[in-house]
Amino acid sequence: MITYDLELGWRADEEANERMTEAFGNLVYEREKGVAGYYNLPEDSKLIVSEVQAFASSNEVIQKCDTIVVIGIGGSSLGAKAVDSMLRHRYPGARRMLFLENPDPVDILEKFATITKERSLFLVISKSGTTVETMSIFKAVIDHFHIDLDGDDKERIIAITDEGSALCHFVDHHGIKAYTIPHNVGGRFSVLSSVGIVPLTLAGYDTCTLLAGAASMVERFFDAQEEHLLIKAAFIAKNWETYRMNVLFAYATCLEDFAKWYVQLWGESLGKIDRCGNRVGPTPAGHIGSVDQHSFLQLVMQGPRDKSVTFLKVERFEKDLEIPDIRLEHIQKSDFVNGHTFNELINAECDATRRSVMKEGVPVDSITLDRIDEANIGELILYYELLTSLTGAMLHIDTYDQPGVELGKRILVKTFQKGPNG
Amino acid sequence: MITYDLELGWRADEEANERMTEAFGNLVYEREKGVAGYYNLPEDSKLIVSEVQAFASSNEVIQKCDTIVVIGIGGSSLGAKAVDSMLRHRYPGARRMLFLENPDPVDILEKFATITKERSLFLVISKSGTTVETMSIFKAVIDHFHIDLDGDDKERIIAITDEGSALCHFVDHHGIKAYTIPHNVGGRFSVLSSVGIVPLTLAGYDTCTLLAGAASMVERFFDAQEEHLLIKAAFIAKNWETYRMNVLFAYATCLEDFAKWYVQLWGESLGKIDRCGNRVGPTPAGHIGSVDQHSFLQLVMQGPRDKSVTFLKVERFEKDLEIPDIRLEHIQKSDFVNGHTFNELINAECDATRRSVMKEGVPVDSITLDRIDEANIGELILYYELLTSLTGAMLHIDTYDQPGVELGKRILVKTFQKGPNG
Repeated sequence: MITYDLELGWRADEEANERMTEAFGNLVYEREKGVAGYYNLPEDSKLIVSEVQAFASSNEVIQKCDTIVVIGIGGSSLGAKAVDSMLRHRYPGARRMLFLENPDPVDILEKFATITKERSLFLVISKSGTTVETMSIFKAVIDHFHIDLDGDDKERIIAITDEGSALCHFVDHHGIKAYTIPHNVGGRFSVLSSVGIVPLTLAGYDTCTLLAGAASMVERFFDAQEEHLLIKAAFIAKNWETYRMNVLFAYATCLEDFAKWYVQLWGESLGKIDRCGNRVGPTPAGHIGSVDQHSFLQLVMQGPRDKSVTFLKVERFEKDLEIPDIRLEHIQKSDFVNGHTFNELINAECDATRRSVMKEGVPVDSITLDRIDEANIGELILYYELLTSLTGAMLHIDTYDQPGVELGKRILVKTFQKGPNG
Repeated sequence: MITYDLELGWRADEEANERMTEAFGNLVYEREKGVAGYYNLPEDSKLIVSEVQAFASSNEVIQKCDTIVVIGIGGSSLGAKAVDSMLRHRYPGARRMLFLENPDPVDILEKFATITKERSLFLVISKSGTTVETMSIFKAVIDHFHIDLDGDDKERIIAITDEGSALCHFVDHHGIKAYTIPHNVGGRFSVLSSVGIVPLTLAGYDTCTLLAGAASMVERFFDAQEEHLLIKAAFIAKNWETYRMNVLFAYATCLEDFAKWYVQLWGESLGKIDRCGNRVGPTPAGHIGSVDQHSFLQLVMQGPRDKSVTFLKVERFEKDLEIPDIRLEHIQKSDFVNGHTFNELINAECDATRRSVMKEGVPVDSITLDRIDEANIGELILYYELLTSLTGAMLHIDTYDQPGVELGKRILVKTFQKGPNG
């Protein structure tokens, strides 16, 4: 169960109410017309789960694997990585997931050193099938592990890509297994498509429940509108020039990759030129409590009032540990938590920080998970995706394109045509 | 060697020149009067290195250790963690460093499971000696590993704290070894004090060269003013209401913790109420290339012009790997990098992204390390500390205090007095 609380110090006026109605209508339209495909993934991806489970249970190569190597970058890796980070401690028996993302040679070689080909499955993930980092790392994998694409090794490779993509043609050519990504699902919205579901299912996570949690959020939203979501989106869209940043303060170490996923989802979707030609978009930032309340909090408290803060809290941690009732000579000042647990401490810190931030007049909202489990994670993913779509609709932008990242790609190609040092 | 390039599209006017002169004078004053002690650490901490090395080489307990456990949070851990992350791949023989920071029970228990008391040294680090997270984790360590504070176990404990602090009295009481932190060095400026130097030296890093790199930056700055630093600080201070965020885009996976260190240094130092009572301060953000150029870059390119971007690049990686000259059927489109190396690719991506961002009129500067080594890291640390002090001086704030984090601490204490659920 997740509870959502808004303490924005803001009341939606008529204009905001109109925006909400319009944006909700937009999302209904997007869903019906297939403008964005992610709304349907919680239902549609169930089939993928059963197919992958059936395939894996009868496949000897997979049965012998203890590592799922994901070759992908950005939207092709961050979602599965976030879910893996959140659930790992609950699944000690899950297959290790290893992400080859950054084209950093030191990073790649360090990860290669931990991979045994005979116990690994390689998932190469790219929507277009031409992502230069992913394809370069894939080639390095082929070379380093002596993978014979036309021999037995091809059973250790699975591709996840758009139908008809270059990568799709490649795997057809070699008879390599592939899963497709719906055309209308962009990378950053793809965690519940084959992009996330295939690797997570192969690792051994309960992706059915993940999808069920997501489905419940989609249903509730389209049936009952989830007013808190509409109001939060309206607040952000209306006030983005004042509150230019939304800081996600997540109070559990395992939420760090989720915060990164949120940053990419929000940043790439909402940083746009709107239909009037204006550059718009609030900036997302991810921070981890209680570590970052020892630093970044100062800026939130006394710096300019240009931020809103979202507190993400977990009521009950999977394991807990008591703060022993030990009295250390001279350091009794911190004994006030003795006999309590770390679960209590970190949550009390979250609450105390939230109250201190509110006292400074910073707009705050809270998302409280009763625990970290598949259903809650599924819901949380959908919550953020819907929030992004709503905010995008209210900002009058195209939430689903990313024209701004193309220029750099073109310059890169030209650089190599001239020679990388020329 | 590090090179610094500014492409800010901005020319310092007379007012900015005055600010620079004044701020430089401020730092000279701070150094002479001991307002901030970090200026002297590159010289003063040399003694600590030799003392620690002598102590460690003759100490049997340490000789048998393969793990340095750092118990500390925020400024007490992030600096050493950043240096460890950057240097680790060059020191395969260095002792493992483990950071117990966040009071998250799952995180703590996972780390406990990897610790063997007989091969571990526990460094408890807190300036005040009363940090509730650190003291609570320290108590959990004592309890979990059955540490007898009055027996042989006390040789596995070292405290790092302010002279006269509660923790200082505690270790005196038990005859436990301690290193002190100069009173005029705040947590976020403390990486080159005993806070960072003791654990890093114990781990086996060449901290002498780290300090030498830092010393060279201090000398060059106070002798020759390093104009690029003054101009960058003036640009940020003058334009912070326009360019509200500085995004550090670091192109190497191992720079991620350094980016976090930068975020805490900058955020906690510069987010303040100035002497006229105004809330001021630019917001720092850390991103990793090329991963984040697949997402956050969109916001930089087409979102509002409220960011400046700093590109941090490493010319020569410690290891490299060729992108094999393999032609994969149907995916020739990415073959333009074949035969080049990943070192070339990631840097060409950095350059291409920088050029595309500049083309959009975003103020950009670049910091280029010829390689990641101790001397460059030391210089880079000082560069950022000086930049922070200069910017703070120009913003007319107290760069070294952090009153904004105190309220939450008081609320926390009250919460527990009432009971954490009350």
